[in-house]
Amino acid sequence: MNKLEDYLVSIPDFPKPGVVFRDITSILQDKDGLQLAIKEILKLLADTDFDLVAAPESRGFLLGMPIAYQMKKGFIPVRKKGKLPRETIRAGFEMEYARTELEMHKDAVAPGQKVVIIDDLMATGNTLRVIADMVETLGGKVVKICCLLELPELEGRRQLKDYEIASVLSCDEA
Amino acid sequence: MNKLEDYLVSIPDFPKPGVVFRDITSILQDKDGLQLAIKEILKLLADTDFDLVAAPESRGFLLGMPIAYQMKKGFIPVRKKGKLPRETIRAGFEMEYARTELEMHKDAVAPGQKVVIIDDLMATGNTLRVIADMVETLGGKVVKICCLLELPELEGRRQLKDYEIASVLSCDEA
Repeated sequence: MNKLEDYLVSIPDFPKPGVVFRDITSILQDKDGLQLAIKEILKLLADTDFDLVAAPESRGFLLGMPIAYQMKKGFIPVRKKGKLPRETIRAGFEMEYARTELEMHKDAVAPGQKVVIIDDLMATGNTLRVIADMVETLGGKVVKICCLLELPELEGRRQLKDYEIASVLSCDEA
Repeated sequence: MNKLEDYLVSIPDFPKPGVVFRDITSILQDKDGLQLAIKEILKLLADTDFDLVAAPESRGFLLGMPIAYQMKKGFIPVRKKGKLPRETIRAGFEMEYARTELEMHKDAVAPGQKVVIIDDLMATGNTLRVIADMVETLGGKVVKICCLLELPELEGRRQLKDYEIASVLSCDEA
């Protein structure tokens, strides 16, 4: 059996010059890579008591849904503005002169529910921070944040220091 | 245990006047609804021999990945133009004066591999048609198309008559 690292492909200068893109699709298109990725995230959650998985579109969906299915939890999609059909709450962040706004359905979390946030990558932590804020606005508790990959150089943990965070792999950015 | 229909919410006039939006997020946010949705799709595939699941962003990802995980298959993400980092093939369709272009990684399907396409909704069939075309361009074989919901009034099956199609639920559009 290969290790997860063996399936991960790094693409220099995507989506723009100077960025090394870590491609999780190369893991998931291999049936053994896919099993390994999900099982490694499940290990991070082995001792965590929770009710719901929240994950952002689109790559967070890829990992969050199999975890919710396997652990028999509900799933909360976090989407870009205007994509969710029912009443939502919205939060956002500014980065490189552009604002990103994310939404979650208002009825997705009931007060007191325990939520795990899952994404493919922790970089600056902005997306994870915004999701955690929305969960708490609805009265939920963020019990853990799990990512497949973490880029420690971008110091995402700095703005997430109130949370328990676990990543399967850690990569230098360049 | 409820039926899947009991979890489905219909939103009139979303995303635009005259359209009734069928919201699968209301199914997935309930832990029992989520199990039921995935298990019903698994039933549709009980007798199907296949290697890979292909699914379009973003809602196709929600259903395709748990199926790939449970059946121990590889997963092919189909994305909008410019989102996939490696070499892709591209195909598209025109609808209401706008062109939608979708992409798939060139190495996602090897010649002879058997592919199941999964999406949340079959409406006009345009997205499913384009995915099937790309799979075949790469030498793969589309062995089944599975959707959680089908809107028969939009006659998506008409342009998919070469394929085996199965849906869990069928809804009138209005």
